[in-house]
Amino acid sequence: MQFDLKKYLKEKKRIIDKWLEEALPPENTYPEILHKAMRYTLFAGGKRIRPILMIASYDTVKRPSKYDEIIPFACGIEMIHAYSLIHDDLPIMDDDDFRRGKPTNHRVFGEAIALLAGDGLLTEAFSLMSRKHKKLSPTKALLSIQEIAKAAGISGMVGGQVVDFQSQGKKVDKKTIEYIHNSKTGALILASVRVGAIIGEGDKKALDALTKYGKAIGLCFQVMDDILDIEGEQEILGKDIGSDIEKEKATYPAVFGMESSKDKVKELLDEAITALDSFDKNAEPLREIARFIVKRSY
Amino acid sequence: MQFDLKKYLKEKKRIIDKWLEEALPPENTYPEILHKAMRYTLFAGGKRIRPILMIASYDTVKRPSKYDEIIPFACGIEMIHAYSLIHDDLPIMDDDDFRRGKPTNHRVFGEAIALLAGDGLLTEAFSLMSRKHKKLSPTKALLSIQEIAKAAGISGMVGGQVVDFQSQGKKVDKKTIEYIHNSKTGALILASVRVGAIIGEGDKKALDALTKYGKAIGLCFQVMDDILDIEGEQEILGKDIGSDIEKEKATYPAVFGMESSKDKVKELLDEAITALDSFDKNAEPLREIARFIVKRSY
Repeated sequence: MQFDLKKYLKEKKRIIDKWLEEALPPENTYPEILHKAMRYTLFAGGKRIRPILMIASYDTVKRPSKYDEIIPFACGIEMIHAYSLIHDDLPIMDDDDFRRGKPTNHRVFGEAIALLAGDGLLTEAFSLMSRKHKKLSPTKALLSIQEIAKAAGISGMVGGQVVDFQSQGKKVDKKTIEYIHNSKTGALILASVRVGAIIGEGDKKALDALTKYGKAIGLCFQVMDDILDIEGEQEILGKDIGSDIEKEKATYPAVFGMESSKDKVKELLDEAITALDSFDKNAEPLREIARFIVKRSY
Repeated sequence: MQFDLKKYLKEKKRIIDKWLEEALPPENTYPEILHKAMRYTLFAGGKRIRPILMIASYDTVKRPSKYDEIIPFACGIEMIHAYSLIHDDLPIMDDDDFRRGKPTNHRVFGEAIALLAGDGLLTEAFSLMSRKHKKLSPTKALLSIQEIAKAAGISGMVGGQVVDFQSQGKKVDKKTIEYIHNSKTGALILASVRVGAIIGEGDKKALDALTKYGKAIGLCFQVMDDILDIEGEQEILGKDIGSDIEKEKATYPAVFGMESSKDKVKELLDEAITALDSFDKNAEPLREIARFIVKRSY
């Protein structure tokens, strides 16, 4: 039977939304505005691509799969993603008014509360991941926190944000754009895949293969985003076309040209699929997600 | 021999500064501006009161004391404190130009880099605390991360910041001011004391006693800060006198009156000292630190 990716993504998104709903205190928790603001962005229609990758990676190495042990980390990484969007959209950063067709967090709650909602989501992610785990060993929990903290931090997402911000309006070289993409987007996607394999107790060979896969799709995802910002259709992307150009953002096509960028995407897809060669049909979701990332445009 | 608090604080501060120096990547790490900005606030002359409390609590229960296992947590809590100062000073929050006599982070590095330096310090704290520990058990490491994450997060410091921000210019009730002080300042001070006892392997009785102590001095510290903002001398405080009034901040004296606030400080000091009754001379630093918090003013 053909693997139905659309159904898979929908089903997993539903599960993750439920986990997230339970992971946070109720919306009417004191102070209410903080909890409303955190939930506003966390439940603003995200595709949940990072936790889905974590689950798909976990399912690739673990059989039979039971998701209990993965929940805090799947939720944690999505909360970290949500915090990064809130801070990124602030007027002192990208100054975006809309995201996924809705007013951005600070447009609804004000800049101070948006700042604190971001801080709250980031901190709560670590609180969640360091809770007493029922089945997962403390060693594996600690290792997973470490993976995610490094990917989100100064040598990962935060580092990438800094260079991205500093590169606005400047002509950047190839090394810089690869640093930005690998750090800002790639690191957290790679961590999603690796943590899935760590918690699923994949052996070294499996972890190495999934690391190759994660690196390839992490960069692929961001290069595709750059391409879609120029060639995409607004309804697919859910944000304004051309906003990178308008903001004079450093993008892959701007540095390497459009044709090379499209070639790079195909090359990275190949790399990702090849990395999964040693896995059986359990890796099918990972393969199809990689193809889906590329198919979004052409 | 009389315990010399001044010498003790100076010596511990020197040790912690050295730990922090080694905990972060060198200042010239790429992207340089991020590392410069993080270090700018982290090494801006902080008193290191939180890590010193952690060490003093650890020394109270552990003998003989070896500090190796406590270093990542002592550094982590100070990095979280530094991040909170950077975000708090931003124009969208308190809009402060100076802290400890130096221009605030965003005045030197710009608001976007200050935001990201704060995010970087917060995330790096968790990266540091989740590193592979040589001697500390993963279970205790996880428990300590949990304590600190909860204290720093939505039911701790971030929650307190939200209510503090929302209370500006409003008349607040007693419940609200106690929530602000306990959450915004108290929680992280309490966590410092508790984590010291957890890593030092204090038994339940010791942990309970130190929890009482930590709660009392946490609130005491903030009420004293409020009093000093009205009656203190600028050189002792290192910030502008009267800035709370100017910003229409919710303070303890504003709600309870100055005399009641001073009584409260004495009462809390008594509570803190009494909580340490069952400990011997190893708790002397904790006792003297409590007295020092109160002595700062009158």
